[in-house]
Amino acid sequence: MSNFRLGIISSIYNGIPKEAQITRIEFEGPEIAVYVKNPSALTDKMDIIKKIVKEIKKRIVIKADSSVRKDKRETTEIIKTFVPQEAQISDIKFDDELGEVLIKAKKPGLVIGKRGLIQQKIFTETYWRPIIIREPPIKSRTVEGVLTHIYNETEYRAKMLKTFGERIHRELLFKDRYVRITALGAFQEVGRSAVLVETTESRVLMDVGVNPSVNFGERMFPKLDIDQLRLEELDAVVLTHAHLDHSGMIPFLFKYGYDGPVYTTQPTRDIMALMQLDLLDVADKEGRPLPYSAKEVRKELLHTITLDYEEVTDIAPDIRLTFYNAGHIIGSAMAHLHIGDGTHNLVYTGDFKYARTRLLDRAVAEFPRVDTLIMETTYGAQPQTNREESEKNLVDLINNTINHGGKVLIPVLAVGRGQEIMLVINDAMKKKLIPEVPVYVTGLFDEVTAIHTAYPEWLGKEVRDSILFRDENPFTSEYFKRIEGYREDIAQGEPSIILATSGMLNGGPAVEFFKQFAPDSKNSLIFVSYQAEGTLGRKVRDGAKEIQIIGRDGRIDNIKVNMEVKAIDGFSGHSDRGQLLRFLEDLTPKPRNIVLNHGEMSAIREFKRLVDSRRDRLGLRNTAVYTPAILDSLRLDKTM
Amino acid sequence: MSNFRLGIISSIYNGIPKEAQITRIEFEGPEIAVYVKNPSALTDKMDIIKKIVKEIKKRIVIKADSSVRKDKRETTEIIKTFVPQEAQISDIKFDDELGEVLIKAKKPGLVIGKRGLIQQKIFTETYWRPIIIREPPIKSRTVEGVLTHIYNETEYRAKMLKTFGERIHRELLFKDRYVRITALGAFQEVGRSAVLVETTESRVLMDVGVNPSVNFGERMFPKLDIDQLRLEELDAVVLTHAHLDHSGMIPFLFKYGYDGPVYTTQPTRDIMALMQLDLLDVADKEGRPLPYSAKEVRKELLHTITLDYEEVTDIAPDIRLTFYNAGHIIGSAMAHLHIGDGTHNLVYTGDFKYARTRLLDRAVAEFPRVDTLIMETTYGAQPQTNREESEKNLVDLINNTINHGGKVLIPVLAVGRGQEIMLVINDAMKKKLIPEVPVYVTGLFDEVTAIHTAYPEWLGKEVRDSILFRDENPFTSEYFKRIEGYREDIAQGEPSIILATSGMLNGGPAVEFFKQFAPDSKNSLIFVSYQAEGTLGRKVRDGAKEIQIIGRDGRIDNIKVNMEVKAIDGFSGHSDRGQLLRFLEDLTPKPRNIVLNHGEMSAIREFKRLVDSRRDRLGLRNTAVYTPAILDSLRLDKTM
Repeated sequence: MSNFRLGIISSIYNGIPKEAQITRIEFEGPEIAVYVKNPSALTDKMDIIKKIVKEIKKRIVIKADSSVRKDKRETTEIIKTFVPQEAQISDIKFDDELGEVLIKAKKPGLVIGKRGLIQQKIFTETYWRPIIIREPPIKSRTVEGVLTHIYNETEYRAKMLKTFGERIHRELLFKDRYVRITALGAFQEVGRSAVLVETTESRVLMDVGVNPSVNFGERMFPKLDIDQLRLEELDAVVLTHAHLDHSGMIPFLFKYGYDGPVYTTQPTRDIMALMQLDLLDVADKEGRPLPYSAKEVRKELLHTITLDYEEVTDIAPDIRLTFYNAGHIIGSAMAHLHIGDGTHNLVYTGDFKYARTRLLDRAVAEFPRVDTLIMETTYGAQPQTNREESEKNLVDLINNTINHGGKVLIPVLAVGRGQEIMLVINDAMKKKLIPEVPVYVTGLFDEVTAIHTAYPEWLGKEVRDSILFRDENPFTSEYFKRIEGYREDIAQGEPSIILATSGMLNGGPAVEFFKQFAPDSKNSLIFVSYQAEGTLGRKVRDGAKEIQIIGRDGRIDNIKVNMEVKAIDGFSGHSDRGQLLRFLEDLTPKPRNIVLNHGEMSAIREFKRLVDSRRDRLGLRNTAVYTPAILDSLRLDKTM
Repeated sequence: MSNFRLGIISSIYNGIPKEAQITRIEFEGPEIAVYVKNPSALTDKMDIIKKIVKEIKKRIVIKADSSVRKDKRETTEIIKTFVPQEAQISDIKFDDELGEVLIKAKKPGLVIGKRGLIQQKIFTETYWRPIIIREPPIKSRTVEGVLTHIYNETEYRAKMLKTFGERIHRELLFKDRYVRITALGAFQEVGRSAVLVETTESRVLMDVGVNPSVNFGERMFPKLDIDQLRLEELDAVVLTHAHLDHSGMIPFLFKYGYDGPVYTTQPTRDIMALMQLDLLDVADKEGRPLPYSAKEVRKELLHTITLDYEEVTDIAPDIRLTFYNAGHIIGSAMAHLHIGDGTHNLVYTGDFKYARTRLLDRAVAEFPRVDTLIMETTYGAQPQTNREESEKNLVDLINNTINHGGKVLIPVLAVGRGQEIMLVINDAMKKKLIPEVPVYVTGLFDEVTAIHTAYPEWLGKEVRDSILFRDENPFTSEYFKRIEGYREDIAQGEPSIILATSGMLNGGPAVEFFKQFAPDSKNSLIFVSYQAEGTLGRKVRDGAKEIQIIGRDGRIDNIKVNMEVKAIDGFSGHSDRGQLLRFLEDLTPKPRNIVLNHGEMSAIREFKRLVDSRRDRLGLRNTAVYTPAILDSLRLDKTM
């Protein structure tokens, strides 16, 4: 063992009272687990632990040695005794390796207890560390599947965490320091996001996405085949959110030799796996070669370490990661890297919304330190419509259609915008602004909604409070009828609203409903998200009046489009131009470097011009603005 | 053997007439050697060889199989019979491995014969390939030592060449292409030059220098410790000239795992070795740690492949190197890299002089193709004095001093400026512009002058013609008296001119002469090169009237400076600002990218401003100008 780790261990060993009886000290991922025979000796000595944590600047978890943990059956009984019935425990799982007991309940707050007292009591009585998880009100096969998978592989996972832990806490070798970033994808373009961060010591990859508008060839992937990137030597992958253009190629890394951790948030972990498996499914159906298999998705899940917002975590000997809310989709994060002892502080925004939406709080703009900001610029050039106006337009359109006996089809993307529209419709119906007709939700989108109900803590304050404190969950509102795929009876039935994937009409039940609704001028089609070039959605939005659709059986349907078609632009999960500028204005502290990415060249150029012309107002007079191309590298700390 | 190499071999095998009796085909560095039993069968069939060369686009050399080569003693006799006495052969050495015979002669032209006839005859009669080398009129231990070393290690060298050859002619693996450069040293600064060129296939390092103004720590070396640079995977090192700020760290690469070729010119090879050994010597005397030892210098020499100007050479499967005259010092070159099948053409100027000097021709400004130009900017900000005026000033100063019975001390750098001053003085004396007093030359500088006399073909047209065709060698002119180190009798003697190293008075015989001359107001000191901060030369140039010098014995000498002190700026080997601009104006064709390096930040900023304000006149309206910092990378071909 290195001197460095010995130093940490002896600080802990000497600091903790002898009567606790330490049996092992393990580096478990970013945490240091101290296994003791007598955890009760430490119950009211948290001050001592806090002092050690402060000294060694590492996270410590006290765990009980396996020899003193209570029998599993007995532990289950004790838990059921302590936790009130109303908590509705649905599952209890044990992790022998890490000494943890997973408790799944409909009301996890009641398992935790006031000020964490019940959770604490479970530990002191059973010596198992309780991990408490919400049983979502809408059953999610994803949330279920991910947990089952992880708890089936506790041995592998414990071994991995130890390996990661020892790597994270390795000794610093070099005295001279530098920080570089290299653009691997989504620079001067949108799609296939990937940024490599290199220091003298470590290498971190932030996001590894696919280019969703490309189905084959090298432009589909970020540039991962360069000398600079050795997958075996990579320290960490940091994922900012679950969309495939940020997450889609992570399993590919595991296929080609990566064996380290993936840091992300809990909602992102689950949605990411769902999206990746769907990517394989779609590619398979379309007969395209698969870049990886479900095996690598499963491996990735075992290697994923989830973090809360604002939880500071060592991910390499000289890098600390902290996630901040990005307001883009559930679980989306900005990544803050604290490098060296303050040598450099880097914020990578990922995709972000600098405005409150119904679903999420506004992205964070205050950080402890920022030297370099890497910032998305998707809408750097286009002004956007007003949000309240967009909601009003949506309500008016729905009203108009329903009142004339028509049906409304709203194609939605699987993640983010669909849930936002659900909140708008739920609110409007509650306020009687639109008639109470059935709202059918269907497609992949519905499974993602279920995942949302597992993680209400990750939603915006208003909806979170409504779910957690007023027991009003808009996603389980009686207005919404969940259906499987397309349903003929609904298509032929009474006036209704359909929310269905895919959002660009290039597959899914949305297309089937469209075929039925299109010829009737009483119906309407409302686009609430971007329609990419080449999709059916784009054709229809651009005013095509006759459409040919090739069915799975090869038959060609000629569809006359007589329904009303509208596009409402105000619901984007990206910051519009004004919001991007306001973010920079509010940003505290001001960075020395701004790197613009995730935007078409025209958007980046226009946004740089805007920033340059407002430098004084934005407080960025001495900030350098870079617009690198793919495979450019930038040295960030220009003090050698 | 790879398919690719098999293809080349079978083209040669099938193309060459059977009666030549091929025994082996070897990849010897960038050349392909065809060993045959009957070379005479090919003597008048050069058309056939040319056709094959054109087809496979590789260099072919026909060699005789060892079994048919004449006995060495007999060969020596035959050579002596064919070559006229006046050629003055001084040495004959055999390389059994490569089938070459080295013939060293005072008049190599007479060994070659008219239209190469004698050289040809030696081959057809002995079946040894003659390599003809000049015995310099001033004996050079460097030129002697380098050749002896190489011919002592023919077996090792032949093996190396084969290894390089197979690596150069390996198969291309990747279809997608990119070209990147990474700044490792001498970007936004002067010193420690190094640029990494990466393609999908290959990696080439251009220059690997030390920072001569720094004696320790990381700023002394280019950034060689990054992930991107794996010495074992490097394809080639390209060296543009011998100054230590470009060549000083090449042996270090061999110490840490590099095992490949170094491409440079013949004069650069010899001077580079001399300078590197001197660096070790000085560091040793000053008690500083040595970055490498003489062992690595010797290894580097065995790995060096010398090229002529404008000789096109494969150095990697997708890179062809061509050197062009840079006009900076003898053997200095601009490196042209032709990448892929024209994917990208990169010119790296190294240090260059875009003006004719007495010693060298003006640097080249016309290339077959240029997409990116990496250009030195040392004097991007300072205007310089007129050259003729500088010469006139020098002559006037010398005249004035000598006529008043004084002595002239001219401290000179070892390489380049000193030889230029010799030519000025020689010419002025011949023209009776200055009195015929003895001109003493001493120090490392004198050995470098000897190397110049070994390579007159590499000098400017005027001095070259004078040496080769009129048999007038200015360096061996009777005006010049070569002495060893410092000589008291000369210091105390009659009026004279002393040319001595070091050029900044920080060591060498120049300091000893300075101590003697300084107190006497009749004497004068003329600086003809840059005086760096912190050197004795800088102090004196800046007007110090009393100087303390600590001698080797620790005694402190108090020196009163009464002598006349002048600095003449017009002899620089770098282009001045006007020459840099004229180079860009003349440059053909115009590049898409210009990367400015080898200049202080202020010089680079000012020069970029000058270029931006003259884009139309320079024909660079659509050229991007980059000023990267160390560890920045730039993707050069922005078409993915």
